[in-house]
Amino acid sequence: MASRFSVSYWLDATGEKEARARALDIAVEQTVEIPREIVPRGYVEDEILGRLENLKSADAERGGFLAEISYSEDDVGGDFLQLLNIVFGNSSIKTGTRVESLQLSDGLRKLCPGPRFGAAGLRARTEVNSGPLIMSAIKPVGLSTSELADLTHRFALGGTHLIKDDHGLVDQPTSPYPERLKACVEAVAEANASTGFQCAYVPNITGPASQIFERAFLAKEAGAGAVMLAPSLVGFDVSRTLAADPGFCLPIISHPTFAGANVITPTTGFSHRFYFGTLQRLMGVDAVVFPNFGGRFGFSREECLSILHGCTEDLGELKPIFPAPGGGMTFERIADMQQVYGNHVIYLIGGALLRESDLASACRALRARIADLSLPAN
Amino acid sequence: MASRFSVSYWLDATGEKEARARALDIAVEQTVEIPREIVPRGYVEDEILGRLENLKSADAERGGFLAEISYSEDDVGGDFLQLLNIVFGNSSIKTGTRVESLQLSDGLRKLCPGPRFGAAGLRARTEVNSGPLIMSAIKPVGLSTSELADLTHRFALGGTHLIKDDHGLVDQPTSPYPERLKACVEAVAEANASTGFQCAYVPNITGPASQIFERAFLAKEAGAGAVMLAPSLVGFDVSRTLAADPGFCLPIISHPTFAGANVITPTTGFSHRFYFGTLQRLMGVDAVVFPNFGGRFGFSREECLSILHGCTEDLGELKPIFPAPGGGMTFERIADMQQVYGNHVIYLIGGALLRESDLASACRALRARIADLSLPAN
Repeated sequence: MASRFSVSYWLDATGEKEARARALDIAVEQTVEIPREIVPRGYVEDEILGRLENLKSADAERGGFLAEISYSEDDVGGDFLQLLNIVFGNSSIKTGTRVESLQLSDGLRKLCPGPRFGAAGLRARTEVNSGPLIMSAIKPVGLSTSELADLTHRFALGGTHLIKDDHGLVDQPTSPYPERLKACVEAVAEANASTGFQCAYVPNITGPASQIFERAFLAKEAGAGAVMLAPSLVGFDVSRTLAADPGFCLPIISHPTFAGANVITPTTGFSHRFYFGTLQRLMGVDAVVFPNFGGRFGFSREECLSILHGCTEDLGELKPIFPAPGGGMTFERIADMQQVYGNHVIYLIGGALLRESDLASACRALRARIADLSLPAN
Repeated sequence: MASRFSVSYWLDATGEKEARARALDIAVEQTVEIPREIVPRGYVEDEILGRLENLKSADAERGGFLAEISYSEDDVGGDFLQLLNIVFGNSSIKTGTRVESLQLSDGLRKLCPGPRFGAAGLRARTEVNSGPLIMSAIKPVGLSTSELADLTHRFALGGTHLIKDDHGLVDQPTSPYPERLKACVEAVAEANASTGFQCAYVPNITGPASQIFERAFLAKEAGAGAVMLAPSLVGFDVSRTLAADPGFCLPIISHPTFAGANVITPTTGFSHRFYFGTLQRLMGVDAVVFPNFGGRFGFSREECLSILHGCTEDLGELKPIFPAPGGGMTFERIADMQQVYGNHVIYLIGGALLRESDLASACRALRARIADLSLPAN
């Protein structure tokens, strides 16, 4: 028999009987997808069919039930997208059903070696041994390559550790991908040469299905410091493939665009901890962008804490990664954010910095402010 | 100035002032993503920044407002994923915000030539000139290739027009993809030779990012009748790329697994009409699987009607496609479904057929029942 992994689902059932029936339906829906009474005896029934391992009430405040269902590695068949299909395929179309967490098996750890760099690797590459990192974004779409490269240069002069493309920058005629890549890598290198920092330019490789790997390797060859992609748009296997490729070997930052519906309704989709934590680490992502609490989006402080937990909890060989909260961050928010994220965070500050006429000075002031507030231990 | 396309969003605002403010926020969020007061004058402000074109109350029963926002083709830059990123990128993370519809521009029609076959092309290939088509699925995962090929053979003997892989069948050791592909194509060909039907085997090509196009072309070379994929897993540009490739030239069927959160909450995500209609046609999909009303999932009759509308409404050169409702369909439901879908439908019936000991006879009975109920005109 193959090893089994398991998924915990929250169900909004009102009583245990209903919860059990719904959980057993999920065990069928996510595996054999035929009526239980015609499931072939033997291997299919004993191995492939999902198994309800545990059912208990959720905490009183939330209500409902938590059902743990185990699945066979045989069903995954070495295919990451099939793993996701088992975790939440057709059952994603049911209301009152939410993926809470995934309990890994050894086979899954082999299929998903996880982040190549992780938080520690990103620290090493940017030479930030302690305290939070800072990331910003060059934007908006419509600026020319030289204007974007100039922004990049000023961010780097100010010591912004990671300088990423806006997620809307792709290959528009105003700034074609290869041209922007070259100009921004040069802009960062020039600034680093004068400051001694190890700032990194992070191009957005989200693009046509037939070109995504080409754009990733172009970034590598050009000397980019990392790449950014949006898994909800390019598909959920691109990052895992790149992270597992020793010939690629660049950190990967994931962006939440187009993914909102997966998390924002508390009774459907995925828990924040799973979606922005576990799933990202399975995909080999090294830092995950998400909306900070109290910004332009509706994530709560508790949800953001759960993301931090998902990014850092012990998953064996799957390295801890950085949460990168953004979306309406300002200088004034930093003290409050430090209380939640401590030192294990990348602050993504875009618009608030772009307001400043002396961008490099503003970045330096931000670095100083963060250093002042940093906890003594890493 | 480039042409503009527009997106209609539903907003749950309580008054016009709030609705206007929220719509203007979306126009910024989806394009420049910097505070409005620092948007560069000239090209970026005049062209790239989203423009609120219209704002009106939604119907009284629903409440809220409908905001139409236009965007520039320049922002898309010839990239389909960037189009989706503009339609609903970061704003997907906001509650009370739902994409209702997309109004195309000429440039988008060029970027998305749409389904190569469409409903009419699928009719021609399967030689079903009028009335609904029938699709079924071989399953469950865990059966051997010869067992799956045997099911395929019996479905084809009974005249099931499209015989697809269960969406959980990928490349498991019990039935590796190339082996299953060959065996099932042969099984259908043998049955067709004896019946004179033009039934088609539809392998599931959902798989690793680095192998997806290879699997598609393997299917083509092996003589499959169409392919199936899950856009929410493989990414949203794979289907469009295949449909636009004259060297591929096979119909594409899309599966909704993992996509549920995008539609099931009425105040977030996408309207059913857009997600299972417009979007599929932009992706070049020829038939779209979704859960039928009254089955195992919660779609309403009205939502299914709106999907039919999205699959068939006039979008210029983007061909009409087939809705393929499934998920708990039984013989008894057909009369009711005919009233909703008329003849423009593919009935996806899986489990109910697999219960039958004489599968081929059951399929023939189903064909006869559907023919009896079919409307006189196509």
